[in-house]
Amino acid sequence: MTIQLYGFWRSNAAFRVRVALALKKLAFEEIEVDILSGRQFDADYADVNPEHVVPTLVHDGQPIFQSLAIIEYLDDIRPEPRLLPADASERAYARALASVSAADSHPLTAPRVRKHLGKTFNADAVAIETWCRHWTAEGLAAYERLLTRRPAVPFALGPAPTIADICIAGQIVLADLYGLELAAFPEVAALGRRCFENAAFADAHPFRQPGYK
Amino acid sequence: MTIQLYGFWRSNAAFRVRVALALKKLAFEEIEVDILSGRQFDADYADVNPEHVVPTLVHDGQPIFQSLAIIEYLDDIRPEPRLLPADASERAYARALASVSAADSHPLTAPRVRKHLGKTFNADAVAIETWCRHWTAEGLAAYERLLTRRPAVPFALGPAPTIADICIAGQIVLADLYGLELAAFPEVAALGRRCFENAAFADAHPFRQPGYK
Repeated sequence: MTIQLYGFWRSNAAFRVRVALALKKLAFEEIEVDILSGRQFDADYADVNPEHVVPTLVHDGQPIFQSLAIIEYLDDIRPEPRLLPADASERAYARALASVSAADSHPLTAPRVRKHLGKTFNADAVAIETWCRHWTAEGLAAYERLLTRRPAVPFALGPAPTIADICIAGQIVLADLYGLELAAFPEVAALGRRCFENAAFADAHPFRQPGYK
Repeated sequence: MTIQLYGFWRSNAAFRVRVALALKKLAFEEIEVDILSGRQFDADYADVNPEHVVPTLVHDGQPIFQSLAIIEYLDDIRPEPRLLPADASERAYARALASVSAADSHPLTAPRVRKHLGKTFNADAVAIETWCRHWTAEGLAAYERLLTRRPAVPFALGPAPTIADICIAGQIVLADLYGLELAAFPEVAALGRRCFENAAFADAHPFRQPGYK
């Protein structure tokens, strides 16, 4: 089996997929698509992914896109360790937690959104950073409320990390990128520490990627 | 089995869940949470859903949130008709298509985002509508490219509607809300016509809900 990942050091969705690949011990080649320079709109990449987003995982020549769909796919083709719980209601909770960042928080800070804020509202760099910090903090606050109601012992769904922990760790990565402190989010911070003790999470962090300066 | 759906006539995510429930012929009671008036932040609803978003589906007393997680859950507890294909790579494609709207397009037009644009950039009603139309059109354009590469015959994944068609139909609902023409998106428009011929889709449309004036 050969796996290529079209990703980028700063892409939060690529971070999620790198963690999943590492947890499942699947080797892959990463191909850089510089989304800050708009390379996701190049014709070559549009052939790989007509949505013009990263990441795309190519498994034996077949492209799969959208980070949560990729992680679910990896769980199908390489079931161990499981990133989705076996029980239906637990699986639903894991997916819901994943979507708090992947659908409701992270998309609001994507490069195309930052760019559009500048173009539409003349937002300068400071205003755009403030926007990103706001939505990143909103996502962290939602996770804090959820983890307060159902504490992570030690991970969100139980003994081992799942798709939920990957996305919560991704939200912490956004906090790192935007210089947000986690002091107001103690449950999230504690879960994050447990995640980043694991090399699968730590080595996937944007600051550890070759493209990061 | 008893099902309650905390939803709202205008919520795109609630639309998706109403379609899924109807396709599976699952009866449910809908409880209105007026997200335009901020009722999703009320303490009573925060107990149901600490993320403060709609919809939440309550199945025999257990709350499940996030529309895609709910639809996957319904597919687990009531497998027929299947809304996720059986084949792993087809399932991945269905989930990826679903996320184009649910993660990358619709969240950018949610009430909390519209409100924050007003507060942060002094965006007036016209500017906010323009913002929503822009991101709705971006989502439609992504779907058009994807459906051009792999035509829907007659639905996105094949003979029957899946989670992908539900989310593409939801993107068309956003176009209806923001007064966008579909002429530039013929593949999307044709798929939408096939979807809305089905009462499960048509009856779930925001304009057919009791709360719509």
